[in-house]
Amino acid sequence: MAHVKHMKWWGWGEEGVHFEFSNKPAFAPFVKRALGVDLRPRERDTIDFSTVSVPAPRLETDLLDTLGGIVGDEHTSTDDELRVVHWAGKSVTELLLTRAGDFARVPDVVVYPADEDEVARVVALAVERDLVLIPFGGGTSISRSLQPSPDEERTIVSLDLGRLDKVLAIDETSGLATIQAGVLGPDMEDQLNARGWTLGHFPDSFTHSTLGGWAATRSSGMQSDKYGDIADIVRGMRVVRPGGTVVLRPLPSTSTGPSLREMFIGSEGRLGVITELDVQVHRIAEHREVIAYMFPSWPKALTAMHDIARSDVSTTFARVSDAHETAFSLSTQKAATSLKKKVAAKGQDLLWEVMRRRGWDTDEMCISYVCFEGTKAEVERRKKTVASIVKQQGAIVLGSGPGALYDQKKFDTPYLRDFLLEQNTIGDVSETAAPWSKLTTVHKAVYDAAQRAFDEQGKTGWIMSHMSHSYHSGACLYFTFGYEIGQDPHAEYAVIKSAVQQAFVDAGGTLSHHHGVGMEHSAWMEQDVSPEGVRLMRSLFEVADPGANLNPGKIVS
Amino acid sequence: MAHVKHMKWWGWGEEGVHFEFSNKPAFAPFVKRALGVDLRPRERDTIDFSTVSVPAPRLETDLLDTLGGIVGDEHTSTDDELRVVHWAGKSVTELLLTRAGDFARVPDVVVYPADEDEVARVVALAVERDLVLIPFGGGTSISRSLQPSPDEERTIVSLDLGRLDKVLAIDETSGLATIQAGVLGPDMEDQLNARGWTLGHFPDSFTHSTLGGWAATRSSGMQSDKYGDIADIVRGMRVVRPGGTVVLRPLPSTSTGPSLREMFIGSEGRLGVITELDVQVHRIAEHREVIAYMFPSWPKALTAMHDIARSDVSTTFARVSDAHETAFSLSTQKAATSLKKKVAAKGQDLLWEVMRRRGWDTDEMCISYVCFEGTKAEVERRKKTVASIVKQQGAIVLGSGPGALYDQKKFDTPYLRDFLLEQNTIGDVSETAAPWSKLTTVHKAVYDAAQRAFDEQGKTGWIMSHMSHSYHSGACLYFTFGYEIGQDPHAEYAVIKSAVQQAFVDAGGTLSHHHGVGMEHSAWMEQDVSPEGVRLMRSLFEVADPGANLNPGKIVS
Repeated sequence: MAHVKHMKWWGWGEEGVHFEFSNKPAFAPFVKRALGVDLRPRERDTIDFSTVSVPAPRLETDLLDTLGGIVGDEHTSTDDELRVVHWAGKSVTELLLTRAGDFARVPDVVVYPADEDEVARVVALAVERDLVLIPFGGGTSISRSLQPSPDEERTIVSLDLGRLDKVLAIDETSGLATIQAGVLGPDMEDQLNARGWTLGHFPDSFTHSTLGGWAATRSSGMQSDKYGDIADIVRGMRVVRPGGTVVLRPLPSTSTGPSLREMFIGSEGRLGVITELDVQVHRIAEHREVIAYMFPSWPKALTAMHDIARSDVSTTFARVSDAHETAFSLSTQKAATSLKKKVAAKGQDLLWEVMRRRGWDTDEMCISYVCFEGTKAEVERRKKTVASIVKQQGAIVLGSGPGALYDQKKFDTPYLRDFLLEQNTIGDVSETAAPWSKLTTVHKAVYDAAQRAFDEQGKTGWIMSHMSHSYHSGACLYFTFGYEIGQDPHAEYAVIKSAVQQAFVDAGGTLSHHHGVGMEHSAWMEQDVSPEGVRLMRSLFEVADPGANLNPGKIVS
Repeated sequence: MAHVKHMKWWGWGEEGVHFEFSNKPAFAPFVKRALGVDLRPRERDTIDFSTVSVPAPRLETDLLDTLGGIVGDEHTSTDDELRVVHWAGKSVTELLLTRAGDFARVPDVVVYPADEDEVARVVALAVERDLVLIPFGGGTSISRSLQPSPDEERTIVSLDLGRLDKVLAIDETSGLATIQAGVLGPDMEDQLNARGWTLGHFPDSFTHSTLGGWAATRSSGMQSDKYGDIADIVRGMRVVRPGGTVVLRPLPSTSTGPSLREMFIGSEGRLGVITELDVQVHRIAEHREVIAYMFPSWPKALTAMHDIARSDVSTTFARVSDAHETAFSLSTQKAATSLKKKVAAKGQDLLWEVMRRRGWDTDEMCISYVCFEGTKAEVERRKKTVASIVKQQGAIVLGSGPGALYDQKKFDTPYLRDFLLEQNTIGDVSETAAPWSKLTTVHKAVYDAAQRAFDEQGKTGWIMSHMSHSYHSGACLYFTFGYEIGQDPHAEYAVIKSAVQQAFVDAGGTLSHHHGVGMEHSAWMEQDVSPEGVRLMRSLFEVADPGANLNPGKIVS
């Protein structure tokens, strides 16, 4: 299992990688203004694992031997740090608990099967011995889809799919690849890219999450406008269940009753273990450009995004930050050190001057990024059409410079949360999707709800948002909020996070566009899919897993 | 219920509408050549209902009164002809049984609820009194999704949704309409068109099928390349279940566990009664053109269709007939009666001459239709790109004349089956979908299997096919086959239909692309979604409907 990469036990990503603000002169003043927090230089680069104490594994020796007999002793571990790495995802709640060493219940053993046969034997054993089995991909969940129930009495096995990491085949005629579930995003793209293909699925968690995890949590990547949500991308799959393996062959479309494929997608381990997927792949685009635009206001920006979605133009993504997120984004610009950057910074000052002369309120302006892929000629044609659409809403075309910057920074955002926690500050995200007609209402409802929650807690809070992932009938709104931690971190967080979630469903949005349900969002399921919908889903889980051995307690409580 | 339109009891569509061959000089010779059948002029225009005898309703009087108390006595009927209209769909098996008056079991009563509340009360009654409830839309199923189990002992209620026929609301900003499930295709389009919108969903059954039926059977329309399959179109729904109504709000996308929406789509009445749907609607296109192309061969035609699907061009549909279907299509051309038509016929003769001079084998040529919608400029641009793609495969552009003809005739095809039955001949259809890489294999496998089955039965059979419904990773192949009826119509049909279905799944296709499962295709479910997949689906039906009151026996036996 040596080659299975894991994130640091205490936070996001790799040891040694941090969000750094010392080279971003506008950031500390921004945080002071937005959250009332005085940033301090980072005091430590890591957290010593010896600062926490981990509950001893509850595991009969013969069970450990039996598991070792299936996957090999060297792929079976009761190591404390490995068990903590596997105990939960990276939600704020889980990060707080982890840093505090507040582990109610941690997996008792971690196993790394080599193939589907070994997975099947572990699944069968879980049912036979009444164990709890929690499939583990990259551990990036922020919906508490991995954390065991605190009062679980049974032995908990974390089933790490990390050794199932191969692209097995590419059907080049059909644009379909057969890929093992445990492969991490970059490893998968490397294997596909080597043959000229890409999946095109890039969630923020990309660097540390897995294909199987994306399917199991109903993920969507930032390029979904072109490549689709994971539910569109997955065309076939193999799912190990206690009674046998469900094999769904790769099919472009089918009329065979209720969709089993769409039952397993989003099932978060409750219906079985996904071991292999047939997915749509695409030739790497000949040419790619990300162009930035600046809009004078959020309503105009949203109108333009909708007009782009309705137009004849295919974009790879089209996103726009609201005024708050735009301000945040500008605050994270690095200081100009080289001459070239100094010239660019000077150019930016001039741009501001242009905007002010046009009568813009610079506190209202919204930055947008649109990505184009195709032949050079196609990209040029689409850029032209989009330029004319955005100009109708008074936007200024900023060009490809900021776009390239966005493309480089896109996977760094999750590190910010750990940085802020070090500063005794929460930074968290929550997203929804709603019909186009309701986006403005949802946006305002969430701002109002967050502000009320901040006020109740006597906090200087901050909230910001962007629109991304366009569909025919609506889009995703992605919110980030922050505040300084007070006396009772968990209680405060519950109030604020709940206010945001409740505003989503009250205003006509869904509880999550692509983060899943887990234990974090299950309280809103009845409001989202109706009480009878939850009853049916619960019945499905009960009949599919009568012993409640498969990641119990997730999605519906 | 007077305003609920029904098809004729003995066949497809409206009384008085027939397939006519007397004005198609090439048709009789074609049928003689293809099937060895000598066509006779039509002997009768209808079938007298008194020629069949219908089993008496098995229904306690108080139950009839109770149903009348819910939906009104005037919307409750035990009339023999109405019960026969509701007894089954229009599959070959059902048509043969119906014409022979061979009704093992017919619904005992037909009810026409006015609204969701009445539906809910009927559903509750069905569970309370242990009735069998079969939801009925337009009755166009050709997968035996409506026919009751022949040995059903309980009282059978046909729940006709025909009075739920209104477009309730259009969210013009989001392109979403809320529509009642029982509305027939043309009535729905009339209501949408009046406000400038269209659903864009046009299955061959369009004139006689309903929105709720399309959702319940996982339908796809001929324009799915642009408008999507029904699973893409439906964004929200209301489904009456015994325990309450599942309400799925209209959402562009959501990450809330296994998809309930995708469970109800294709559920054929087994999970509840769909009463209302939120669906994507589109502005009626400014301009629309259907262009015809002639290809020198099937492989070249398929390559071109794939190239179109992979290109930057959005088409509304792109379909191509194989050589056999092209020959059939040409045989149904009307005799030239007007001068204009005579000139056109002359032009066609010249075209044939051109093809021969190019060295084409006219027995191999394949006709294709591609539909373009958008602004005039967009349509022109796309036509140009498609013309260059098809020319790379040696195709000749025939222009919009034959395309317009295709557009007019598209809903007439189902009448052909009844015409052929009158001639003691079977004409039937079966469709699949497969990855692009397998289309040629599937096509050949089906031809070979059908030929073997014809040979076994000592028949001169005919089979033909077209490719339609393109996706990123594959497409649909739609087959039509025919033969003269012999001694044992049901046994012969079973052999031939089974050969086609078995070839689908053996060659990597699905048992149905858009006709659903019903009782007709349930035998192939284990081969399509694997035995464990069927077990899980069966468990879902059992737990969702423990009394087996909701259209039992369909999809999985």
